[in-house]
Amino acid sequence: MLSRQVLNRVAISRLSSVKVDMMPHGVASLAFNAPPVNTLNKQLLSDIKTSVDQVVADGASAIVFSSAKPGVFSSGLDIFSMYGKTDDELREFWQHVQDMWLSVYMCPIPTIAAINGASPAGGCQIAMSCDYRIMAKHPKIVIGLNETALGIVAPTWFVDTMINTIGQRETEWALQLGHLYSGEHALKIGLVDELVEPDDMMERVIENLKLWLKVPPKARAITKQLLRQETANKLIRNKEQDIETFVKLVSQPSVQKDLGRYIEMMKAKSKK
Amino acid sequence: MLSRQVLNRVAISRLSSVKVDMMPHGVASLAFNAPPVNTLNKQLLSDIKTSVDQVVADGASAIVFSSAKPGVFSSGLDIFSMYGKTDDELREFWQHVQDMWLSVYMCPIPTIAAINGASPAGGCQIAMSCDYRIMAKHPKIVIGLNETALGIVAPTWFVDTMINTIGQRETEWALQLGHLYSGEHALKIGLVDELVEPDDMMERVIENLKLWLKVPPKARAITKQLLRQETANKLIRNKEQDIETFVKLVSQPSVQKDLGRYIEMMKAKSKK
Amino acid sequence: MLSRQVLNRVAISRLSSVKVDMMPHGVASLAFNAPPVNTLNKQLLSDIKTSVDQVVADGASAIVFSSAKPGVFSSGLDIFSMYGKTDDELREFWQHVQDMWLSVYMCPIPTIAAINGASPAGGCQIAMSCDYRIMAKHPKIVIGLNETALGIVAPTWFVDTMINTIGQRETEWALQLGHLYSGEHALKIGLVDELVEPDDMMERVIENLKLWLKVPPKARAITKQLLRQETANKLIRNKEQDIETFVKLVSQPSVQKDLGRYIEMMKAKSKK
Repeated sequence: MLSRQVLNRVAISRLSSVKVDMMPHGVASLAFNAPPVNTLNKQLLSDIKTSVDQVVADGASAIVFSSAKPGVFSSGLDIFSMYGKTDDELREFWQHVQDMWLSVYMCPIPTIAAINGASPAGGCQIAMSCDYRIMAKHPKIVIGLNETALGIVAPTWFVDTMINTIGQRETEWALQLGHLYSGEHALKIGLVDELVEPDDMMERVIENLKLWLKVPPKARAITKQLLRQETANKLIRNKEQDIETFVKLVSQPSVQKDLGRYIEMMKAKSKK
Repeated sequence: MLSRQVLNRVAISRLSSVKVDMMPHGVASLAFNAPPVNTLNKQLLSDIKTSVDQVVADGASAIVFSSAKPGVFSSGLDIFSMYGKTDDELREFWQHVQDMWLSVYMCPIPTIAAINGASPAGGCQIAMSCDYRIMAKHPKIVIGLNETALGIVAPTWFVDTMINTIGQRETEWALQLGHLYSGEHALKIGLVDELVEPDDMMERVIENLKLWLKVPPKARAITKQLLRQETANKLIRNKEQDIETFVKLVSQPSVQKDLGRYIEMMKAKSKK
Repeated sequence: MLSRQVLNRVAISRLSSVKVDMMPHGVASLAFNAPPVNTLNKQLLSDIKTSVDQVVADGASAIVFSSAKPGVFSSGLDIFSMYGKTDDELREFWQHVQDMWLSVYMCPIPTIAAINGASPAGGCQIAMSCDYRIMAKHPKIVIGLNETALGIVAPTWFVDTMINTIGQRETEWALQLGHLYSGEHALKIGLVDELVEPDDMMERVIENLKLWLKVPPKARAITKQLLRQETANKLIRNKEQDIETFVKLVSQPSVQKDLGRYIEMMKAKSKK
């Protein structure tokens, strides 16, 4: 059993974009490691899903998500994967987004987001899908679903996850304005559970893990499933339709034009 | 295009009970103007719906609702339209209530309630159906669904709107007691988003509009629809049934007696 | 009518485990009286349901639930009724749990929980099913659904009731950790509505009853039904299935072993 675990861990460590480390008490640390900003492209999406599924299969007791490069937790879904692509390429990309989310959201073991960097859009969605969120206090570390501000629309299951986290009224405001919350504001509305000095992050994660690890794991896992299965099912029953909605929306000339403009803007910015 | 807009605006200005003014950046101001207390009778309900639909069709960028006579935002649904009426008159009245609400709640452009007066029952329902609520601070300016206190029952879609705004638990307490919240209390529980000195209302509305107007309008409108269509559909799929439920409830002798007593009480009060 | 009420009251007072007293203005006090800790066994479950149904039938204006022995409100469902039982015994027990809950949750008159003692698991469920919760301030008086911590799983309708009370996000945290909240924490998240000194409990209950008793009772009752019927229906439509789920879960050897260990631990504790 141990040797199989070691074998798997070696396999996992070959995943270029997620750094997997085992902490004491069987806790798996999954650090996003796709410089410069952990953009959720096909590779990172697939590596997150694979590493979550693998450490669960190996009997890990909990997962801590973080960024291997503090500063950006994840910049969200990869715009390049949506720009100038064929419908089939868009379909494949979106299926990776769906599958990554279902693995994280329905993960049977406790998941803690150590949000040690900015967490917009897809980054926020991963954090909201964890069981607990600890955010590092820094003016540049903000969190939110800001899709609308970029001219695109968050998918229904991002919306459902946010409603489950902060309620309908705050979600309506946040999503319509595409708002990125400061740490203080995120704490106040319950988008994160704790706000800590960056240097205290690891200590707080460990303190918190103690609470989660002392609960009987089977009863906790069934309870989590009871609480989340209905939201997950809304996507599971509707995966094909959700993919076609995405393809139809993103392949619109007006959206492609907006994305193109955004890419140009980012390129210009990075040249400075 | 401009000339058609001007034409429409002239048409709108003939609506006796809603004062429509265009503010900078294409924002439409819709001021309820049915003295003394903006009671939601067939005329005002119809004028609200017509003016909302019209300014949206004319390309307005946002809507600000207020009362043309500060002191009462709206006193709610007209009791006289429910007392001593035939079933068909009741049916027609209720359809106007439904249609007004659907226009306001599903309005594709941002809607801000500048609550510059008391906002009980139907007045609260209009405010809750906006995207943002700013309330003037004054001991007489209260807000809530107080139907129960009058011996009547808020319709299911008023209930749904309140649950979406302040959550199930607070709604159960508020609706069962028919509670009218002070500004401070309304702010605390999230029934309003801001509480301002009456003199600062316009300044705060303008500050707030800046946030809404800088968001790409198409993505924001689709996002709003995603967030609200399900709640709206619960009424849309059920309009006929909802009308018959209303007629059956209101035409009960005991309810008619309560309404009659309430009308006598109001008449006695107004003679003092 | 009075004589029938007196007759019923005599009948009720024979119920060994719920002490029924009539307070002024037709308020019924129902005090759990099953020493030492008001464990919800078949007898207490049945007596709660019977006394609620009876005082409602007798025209009581409101119900106040409390413990006849301050210190423990109710210790929750009886573990002994789940240990070493036949499937049919388990079925009968669970039906009593369901029926007690439906009577309390859908009770047409106002219900106030005077939480004058610790309120874990089933005790918390009764409190959450009332219309208002006042909790006595004491380090030992805690409240929460702590089933998970004992290795068992709260049923779906306990989960639904908690989500309705404190929202999805807080419920996910509370249920997964099986957390028992202090009074201060319970107040902060809205699990209770008031936290009072034990000596002030009766005064606060009476003050609060004044609010509930001045609302027209028929409109209030219809409104409460509107707000709760959907949640109740999820169980009503599913009672048989819910019973089989319970029997299947509890009769698992691993769960029986956990319960046996728990019972041994309690016995050892009580011998000290």
